Amino acid sequence: MPSISKKGFSMPESPIRKLVPYAEKAKKNGAKVIHLNIGQPDIKTPQIALDAVKNNTLSVLEYSRTEGSEVYREKLASYYLKNEINVSAQDIIVTTGGSEALSFTMGSIADTDDEIIIPEPFYANYNGFATAMGIKVVPVVSQIENNFALPLIDEFEKLITPKTKGILICNPGNPTGYLYTREEIKKLSAIAKKHDLYLIADEVYREFTYDGKEHYSILQEQGMEDHAIIVDSVSKRYSMCGARIGCLVSKNKEIIKTALKFAQARLSPPTYAQIASEAALETPQSYFDDVKTEYVSRRDLLISELQQIDGIKIGHPHGAFYCIAELPIKDSDHFAQWLLEEFRVNGETVMVAPAAGFYASEGLGKNQIRIAYVLDKESLKRAVYILKEALKVYKDQ
Amino acid sequence: MPSISKKGFSMPESPIRKLVPYAEKAKKNGAKVIHLNIGQPDIKTPQIALDAVKNNTLSVLEYSRTEGSEVYREKLASYYLKNEINVSAQDIIVTTGGSEALSFTMGSIADTDDEIIIPEPFYANYNGFATAMGIKVVPVVSQIENNFALPLIDEFEKLITPKTKGILICNPGNPTGYLYTREEIKKLSAIAKKHDLYLIADEVYREFTYDGKEHYSILQEQGMEDHAIIVDSVSKRYSMCGARIGCLVSKNKEIIKTALKFAQARLSPPTYAQIASEAALETPQSYFDDVKTEYVSRRDLLISELQQIDGIKIGHPHGAFYCIAELPIKDSDHFAQWLLEEFRVNGETVMVAPAAGFYASEGLGKNQIRIAYVLDKESLKRAVYILKEALKVYKDQ
Repeated sequence: MPSISKKGFSMPESPIRKLVPYAEKAKKNGAKVIHLNIGQPDIKTPQIALDAVKNNTLSVLEYSRTEGSEVYREKLASYYLKNEINVSAQDIIVTTGGSEALSFTMGSIADTDDEIIIPEPFYANYNGFATAMGIKVVPVVSQIENNFALPLIDEFEKLITPKTKGILICNPGNPTGYLYTREEIKKLSAIAKKHDLYLIADEVYREFTYDGKEHYSILQEQGMEDHAIIVDSVSKRYSMCGARIGCLVSKNKEIIKTALKFAQARLSPPTYAQIASEAALETPQSYFDDVKTEYVSRRDLLISELQQIDGIKIGHPHGAFYCIAELPIKDSDHFAQWLLEEFRVNGETVMVAPAAGFYASEGLGKNQIRIAYVLDKESLKRAVYILKEALKVYKDQ
Repeated sequence: MPSISKKGFSMPESPIRKLVPYAEKAKKNGAKVIHLNIGQPDIKTPQIALDAVKNNTLSVLEYSRTEGSEVYREKLASYYLKNEINVSAQDIIVTTGGSEALSFTMGSIADTDDEIIIPEPFYANYNGFATAMGIKVVPVVSQIENNFALPLIDEFEKLITPKTKGILICNPGNPTGYLYTREEIKKLSAIAKKHDLYLIADEVYREFTYDGKEHYSILQEQGMEDHAIIVDSVSKRYSMCGARIGCLVSKNKEIIKTALKFAQARLSPPTYAQIASEAALETPQSYFDDVKTEYVSRRDLLISELQQIDGIKIGHPHGAFYCIAELPIKDSDHFAQWLLEEFRVNGETVMVAPAAGFYASEGLGKNQIRIAYVLDKESLKRAVYILKEALKVYKDQ
């Protein structure tokens, strides 16, 4: 039998998905499973986007342009301008999800064994893309006690080597919900300029900021034209995760030119999804206001319920719709599997995402879980109750 | 300014697209451009697929399963069974186009500097995916004089090294239109088994076989369960290039398990396009009969017209909708650009794909072009007339 590549062996299994077989088995055996594990919002997709697809008049479903349709990119540029990000259509490549924008970015800036510094915990799939591209993730630890704020600049500078090509942040953060301050973005920008690195920001949760705090983009920062690369997506913004449309945004023409070559190999982003995404740009502000109000009240409920659990620590989120909780347990992988296999309250159980998969440093996050508050409040409340009851009887191995 | 990766520099520009700026300029200046360069069929997408999307009732456009929806994969398995390819839903991962299936395959079987043998000329983007993954393409030359039939087995065996992980073919072939015989597939399978290699077949043109010849899949060959990986796509089959849905098919469970990890990183294939693709499986046989009849008559017209050009050589195609023609010129890159910039017949010109980009061996294919016969016969006839007139006045540099 021919062999599998070393790369294939080392590809990480998604921490969100590796428990899926246990959840399926639980359901098969009649249990109801409340999903705190996955960032698939229950929020309705804007009607205007759904209708655009239903009313499309295509008779040949053709390739679109490799870089995305001209009209869509023009409209995207207007969207960014409204968000004080001054870019034009030429600075944008439409991609198949934010995922692809990240792959193209990594391929364009780093070769095999080159390094990218990422504050951890981070979106687990960064590990996957880095492994697929042969790139090394160098983590810099952020602390739950500090709500996962930016580690000290010294910590970054200690990690920079000749192989370092960039710093990658997610702002607001998945899995932490942390929103970087303007000062933090300025500090990161200064490091990027001083050491001639790229600063890559995954800003897919840009609109989801709470408590009167505002998002500050790396492309709002002056002098970052050559250094800044934004990874973006319609998935969470319009609750259109299944569209698979994102984009890569940069004022650096060499980056755009290079990423476009990666894009050409895969021909074009999906056509129907571009129709939906273009229409979604016309979503009224009231949609976002409503969604934001809903997420804030879910977050507040979630946090206040979680705080009733003995020995819990919570990273208080100001953005996105995730939070990390540290539980009085040793191994959240084991705990999460046990919940699905053994524990029920009135026939119900909870699926959580063990946090170790969001860390690159071995051994970190093992007593933490990520919770996505993309469920109605009733379910959230019941889910936390189940967690609380579970922790009363759970015995660490 | 931070640097671009070496990989990014070496990513090939698509031979089909690098002339696009010249075509756009020609159009801007009032010329009509007949496109022989790109495999975007003018054939109507099956109505049943278009309607399924128009009639969808989604209110939240959710992620699909990473490996594609259960129902779609079950139906795909039935489609393969009808084509005498005995696979089940568990052997299939739905991908974002055939492109992604190929990326996942390369990542799963080969590490940096590993080698894959490909008969050339080959689909140019194989170069792109290999470069992106850090894999070396080792070409084995097939000849226009021989209609691009499989090179001698000796030629393959000479190229096999400890770094060789697989052999990749496109059957029927883009850009050659060559349909491998059952005997050729048996020979390739024997090499794969003897040297413990993967045999990867891009079979996206499976239905497009002419002159009473039948397609023989690598998975119809006995004993290839561990070795065979099929790359497939709905793009050409149903004239749905813009859907971006393909799949990877293998009976090798390690390959499926590994490719699934690459798939997890990018979450899921596009949801709308899966709706279209699932419905397209119900396309009546009459659709394919009509399409085939149309392609055959286009091919016959194209070949007979081309044969009137002095000094031309043609690889006679029995499948797909491409053919390679060797022209009495030195440099088809220059010729193609000159056509767009300088040559007009009644305000019209032709865009062709220079063939050098379909070869990995430096210097090969420089006097060849690829023609895609995805246009109505009227346009094809005019296009060849323009080529013929152009060659009368064209002066090589």
